[in-house]
Amino acid sequence: MSLIVVGTMAFDNIETPFGKSDRIVGGAATYIAWSACNFTRPINQISVVGGDFPEEEMQALALRGVNLEGVQVRKNEKSFFWAGRYHMDMNTRDTLDTQLNVLADFNPIVPESYQGSEFLMLGNLVPSVQLSVIRQLKSRPNLIVLDTMNFWMETAMPDLEKVLREIDVLLINDSEARQLSAQYSLVKAAREIMKMGPKYLVIKKGEHGALLFYEDQVFVAPALPLEDVFDPTGAGDTFAGGFMGHIARTRDVSFENMKTAVIVGSAMASFCVEKFGNTRLKELDREQIDSRIRQFVELVNFDIQLV
Amino acid sequence: MSLIVVGTMAFDNIETPFGKSDRIVGGAATYIAWSACNFTRPINQISVVGGDFPEEEMQALALRGVNLEGVQVRKNEKSFFWAGRYHMDMNTRDTLDTQLNVLADFNPIVPESYQGSEFLMLGNLVPSVQLSVIRQLKSRPNLIVLDTMNFWMETAMPDLEKVLREIDVLLINDSEARQLSAQYSLVKAAREIMKMGPKYLVIKKGEHGALLFYEDQVFVAPALPLEDVFDPTGAGDTFAGGFMGHIARTRDVSFENMKTAVIVGSAMASFCVEKFGNTRLKELDREQIDSRIRQFVELVNFDIQLV
Repeated sequence: MSLIVVGTMAFDNIETPFGKSDRIVGGAATYIAWSACNFTRPINQISVVGGDFPEEEMQALALRGVNLEGVQVRKNEKSFFWAGRYHMDMNTRDTLDTQLNVLADFNPIVPESYQGSEFLMLGNLVPSVQLSVIRQLKSRPNLIVLDTMNFWMETAMPDLEKVLREIDVLLINDSEARQLSAQYSLVKAAREIMKMGPKYLVIKKGEHGALLFYEDQVFVAPALPLEDVFDPTGAGDTFAGGFMGHIARTRDVSFENMKTAVIVGSAMASFCVEKFGNTRLKELDREQIDSRIRQFVELVNFDIQLV
Repeated sequence: MSLIVVGTMAFDNIETPFGKSDRIVGGAATYIAWSACNFTRPINQISVVGGDFPEEEMQALALRGVNLEGVQVRKNEKSFFWAGRYHMDMNTRDTLDTQLNVLADFNPIVPESYQGSEFLMLGNLVPSVQLSVIRQLKSRPNLIVLDTMNFWMETAMPDLEKVLREIDVLLINDSEARQLSAQYSLVKAAREIMKMGPKYLVIKKGEHGALLFYEDQVFVAPALPLEDVFDPTGAGDTFAGGFMGHIARTRDVSFENMKTAVIVGSAMASFCVEKFGNTRLKELDREQIDSRIRQFVELVNFDIQLV
């Protein structure tokens, strides 16, 4: 049950129609770890932060079973910083500022103690960094899951294509799936993308749920209808953490179990958006998570007797 | 198992990114009848057509158990006509032309033989006409279901408010729900709309499925991921026909059975969009419908064992 998580640990400035949040802790690997640690430990974290990254956050993660040996700390530099503003639909956003800082020349080093990990979650990051981690592993993990975004399709497509050939599961959102495949229909998009490498594809549709594709099969997961989405930042990463956490816990990489992993990921993401940043994730306990997953079971449950 | 269906029987010109179709048979009540007749008969149709409405269409409907006694035929006038163009996302469309013709002064008359019908499906139409049918019924049906659209919210809101107070179930799409409630969150929108009269609310989201609200409960139905949506015209009416048809067949108006009705409606709508107009609906047999409903069961089925 050992899981490697690769991604940013960073600061975000977030504006939503509901408010503003200044310089809060964010980053793909932060959200993934906070989500996945509810299902599997240790989490072997690989990232890079500056001297400004809060020590309390590191300690809080360590207490949750996150191994920080692979997190480089550059005392005299600054952590990655992103500022963005969400629109009313919470599915579209404008990037207001991006400061790469420590990420500019990040060269990930996989600690010897991480070798032999069974699962690898590559959070959204420069494709060449994702690739470097895969290449450093002496034995291939049982499942490699990748998250990426439109920015890398536009600026690093050759590297992204290389990573896609090495992975098992790709997680992207619907507009990214359309961009990557040049197909409008998500069914056709999925077929094209699976030709690029991944055997499984999860297309995330925010408030409309998620689709899981495998060969010519498809599974539809609902999103929990919420009164308010306060802040969607990190929801995709939190989904990834729940998805990968469930797989690592059960050590079952079948399509059937991946369906359940999509539900677990969706349940975790539904918590994330309830408060700014990772506030809600830090409050969670087992009982709340189980109860939320039960809500998902109820959400789609119906009886049918054919005529 | 008697169902009254009220709505237009008309002609449509349709343009989609996949092609054009000139002056094909359409209208809410036509689609509802073609869909509902697979589940319940007779269907007591109430509508108005001109002398141009094809006799073969009437005969085909009669053969499917559609009682046309309540359909007024005005030999020297023309049927209602609508022309529209769909955008690439198939969720938005422009109206290019609307000719009310026989609909301009339509005064529905409920035949004596329709009295005592157990179920009433009010297809999208002028709210005062929908209200007139309700008022003509000597005994209240077990369930009254209403479909409407943004056009009536903008031009006939006082009448629409009156109809809403008389019905049990409202079917509308997501943008209409937001418009009617002045709420962006669909959960909040549902709460506001249910205060206006309907005990149940179905919000249709096209390719993203549908939500069924009742008190503080919600059910999420998937849409079938399709390779191509050729023509969404009539999909909402076809959904209504499947929904109401299932309820009429089972004579069970519980929330639990309404969930199943949403699935049956979704399955029927997934056929409708596969070909232009009502072509696909006319080809359907029981086996195809059962097999499609089974696909919906599979689509959302997952196992979960909590930790």
